[in-house]
Amino acid sequence: MTKPLAPHIPLNRPRLIAPGPVEVSPATLLALAQPQMHHRTPQARAKFLEVRGKLAQLLGDSFEAVIVTGSGTAAFEGALVSLVPAGAKVVNASAGKFSERWGEMAERLGYAVVKVQKPWGELLDAGEIAAACKDAYALTITHSETSTGALHDLEAIAAAAKAVNPDIVIIADCVTSYGVAELRPGAWQVDVIVSGSQKAAATPPGLGFVLFSPEAESKLIKNTPKGFYLDLERELRGQKEANTPQTPAINLIYALDVSLDRLLSVPLEVLWAEKKRQNDALIAAGDALGCRSWSGRPTPAVAVLVPPAGSGVKRIGGKQVAAALADMNQRALPGQAPHEDTVFRISTLGYADRYDALAVAGILEDAFSALGHPFERGAAVSAAWRVLSN
Amino acid sequence: MTKPLAPHIPLNRPRLIAPGPVEVSPATLLALAQPQMHHRTPQARAKFLEVRGKLAQLLGDSFEAVIVTGSGTAAFEGALVSLVPAGAKVVNASAGKFSERWGEMAERLGYAVVKVQKPWGELLDAGEIAAACKDAYALTITHSETSTGALHDLEAIAAAAKAVNPDIVIIADCVTSYGVAELRPGAWQVDVIVSGSQKAAATPPGLGFVLFSPEAESKLIKNTPKGFYLDLERELRGQKEANTPQTPAINLIYALDVSLDRLLSVPLEVLWAEKKRQNDALIAAGDALGCRSWSGRPTPAVAVLVPPAGSGVKRIGGKQVAAALADMNQRALPGQAPHEDTVFRISTLGYADRYDALAVAGILEDAFSALGHPFERGAAVSAAWRVLSN
Repeated sequence: MTKPLAPHIPLNRPRLIAPGPVEVSPATLLALAQPQMHHRTPQARAKFLEVRGKLAQLLGDSFEAVIVTGSGTAAFEGALVSLVPAGAKVVNASAGKFSERWGEMAERLGYAVVKVQKPWGELLDAGEIAAACKDAYALTITHSETSTGALHDLEAIAAAAKAVNPDIVIIADCVTSYGVAELRPGAWQVDVIVSGSQKAAATPPGLGFVLFSPEAESKLIKNTPKGFYLDLERELRGQKEANTPQTPAINLIYALDVSLDRLLSVPLEVLWAEKKRQNDALIAAGDALGCRSWSGRPTPAVAVLVPPAGSGVKRIGGKQVAAALADMNQRALPGQAPHEDTVFRISTLGYADRYDALAVAGILEDAFSALGHPFERGAAVSAAWRVLSN
Repeated sequence: MTKPLAPHIPLNRPRLIAPGPVEVSPATLLALAQPQMHHRTPQARAKFLEVRGKLAQLLGDSFEAVIVTGSGTAAFEGALVSLVPAGAKVVNASAGKFSERWGEMAERLGYAVVKVQKPWGELLDAGEIAAACKDAYALTITHSETSTGALHDLEAIAAAAKAVNPDIVIIADCVTSYGVAELRPGAWQVDVIVSGSQKAAATPPGLGFVLFSPEAESKLIKNTPKGFYLDLERELRGQKEANTPQTPAINLIYALDVSLDRLLSVPLEVLWAEKKRQNDALIAAGDALGCRSWSGRPTPAVAVLVPPAGSGVKRIGGKQVAAALADMNQRALPGQAPHEDTVFRISTLGYADRYDALAVAGILEDAFSALGHPFERGAAVSAAWRVLSN
């Protein structure tokens, strides 16, 4: 079914076109490879404070950043156990893999979890969530759902939840929206933002970020019984003074500093518009090949595309597309279990510019050509370029 | 005249799109950064021999490779002084900056130089060159002239020269054709091939290569009075045994090994076809913007393009185009002095694939748009993609 591989393929430059880990700039990698620094030196402590400041700058609000040595999941757990008292009611809004995870996590940790679930690919409903929030302590929600490609309307949901319960603590998984999509937690009344290093920050994995609003900070629990390493009240107190209770992944922090400088070299609005434009170009390329965005409100972090089906065109599976891209040395992703074959996922989330998005459109055309899918050559590239050059 | 820079430009990924130094793969850079090896260890000596073998493989003929720590010019000088006896007659065929350099070099070294010159941008004439070769000891010629973008017909020229003088030693500057353009020195009766690390070999600068045919090897002069460091007779004897008389840039040789593996992962015909396709795409993109290739027989190493002029369209200078590209963080080149403004030069010679060539077409469109040049948006990208996806 797949055409034989083109002979030039071994010469292809391998690319990470998955929504994290992402392409990392040579300058960032070079920072990582520096002679081993010690995290207690005045230089390292100054760098630590500088990076905390830049993380807040990338958010655009004067939130307090905690850098966790761990994944985004670790960071999310830290936010949860450091803010929500044992046994309290937690509303978990979910419509995909990652938002579901926060529900499982809260249940495991003994919270009284109320789940407001939507099928994968659909959008969360602000009214439905708000209705469950009346007597809840916290709401966990995912802004950009990487498993479905939906950018949920965090602004509307937070407004609705706060309207019925002004004290509710909103913990937002912004793992793939922070530094990518419009995000105004101060104005939107979102209390906690969670992300990680291997997404928009275009740094190798290993760091999670938690950013607390002033109000959330005032609600942090002292000596949470639900965690020791992830006690972010103690972490934040220490980190404000450039003291980390545990040893941080200091090389990654130096690397992150370099990556953040690139993102902060333009106003946030320009950064958001640019990442949206790149992702819109990927969706337009997919559209020209008969694919459609799984979500009607797509996140700019990743194009989650349903391959062509029906009306005389043979069905292509998401796994097939990802495999065809892998055959071309391009690392994309199929869907997330149990929807592996429903969609495929391509992204220019990391160290990639609009011309790389154009290149990915070309890659996608060649993958669909290898899969024997009928389309007019040049359609995807032209569609992408119309978006990019507009 | 130039439009204000687009706000997203600081987010552009800087690219080397000049014909050397070129983009280098992360794997190659990593090899360069290894713990300092010593060139006299058995491992380093084995690596040295391996790389010499791969250099011959990239040529496709069983020539003997000498690795010079120095530039391509050093390598060329080594070939000249190690093969041509003092005062002998040397025919210098030139039609651009680099071929002219070999004439100057031969004169400085005291050879009896006969110059067969063509204006820049034109093609060398085999008959004209052959007529000068009758009683010459050597012919110096540039295969791919990076200053004009011409790929001279080395096969025809060598055949004509050998027809009138079977003993003539043909030293070919293949700095930007080796590993890029069809090159069959055995069949074409070319005796010596000269190149360097920062071109198709996609390695940082610092190494020159000289490849000798068996016959050329037999003509090497012992103890040439014209050079000590560049005495390649002694070098070749040593290098065959993995002994270098002087200390080589051993880290660069380890890095080169990684880059050569990539190039040798496909048959030479595939590599040549792929680089030609990429460069043809750049020329097609330029064509769609009103540019034309300076040479009627373009080298696949670099697109040397004359910007639009006349018939109602305002003249754009080569320096302007290069500057507009530099404003976008893309390192291209204007023409070479004294033709700086006649042309601009763009290239995907190094670690770049066909999708990078598509990206460069997009970059070129945006540069011409910034210059206020009228054209139909999408024309250059579509033209490039037609070549690349064909």
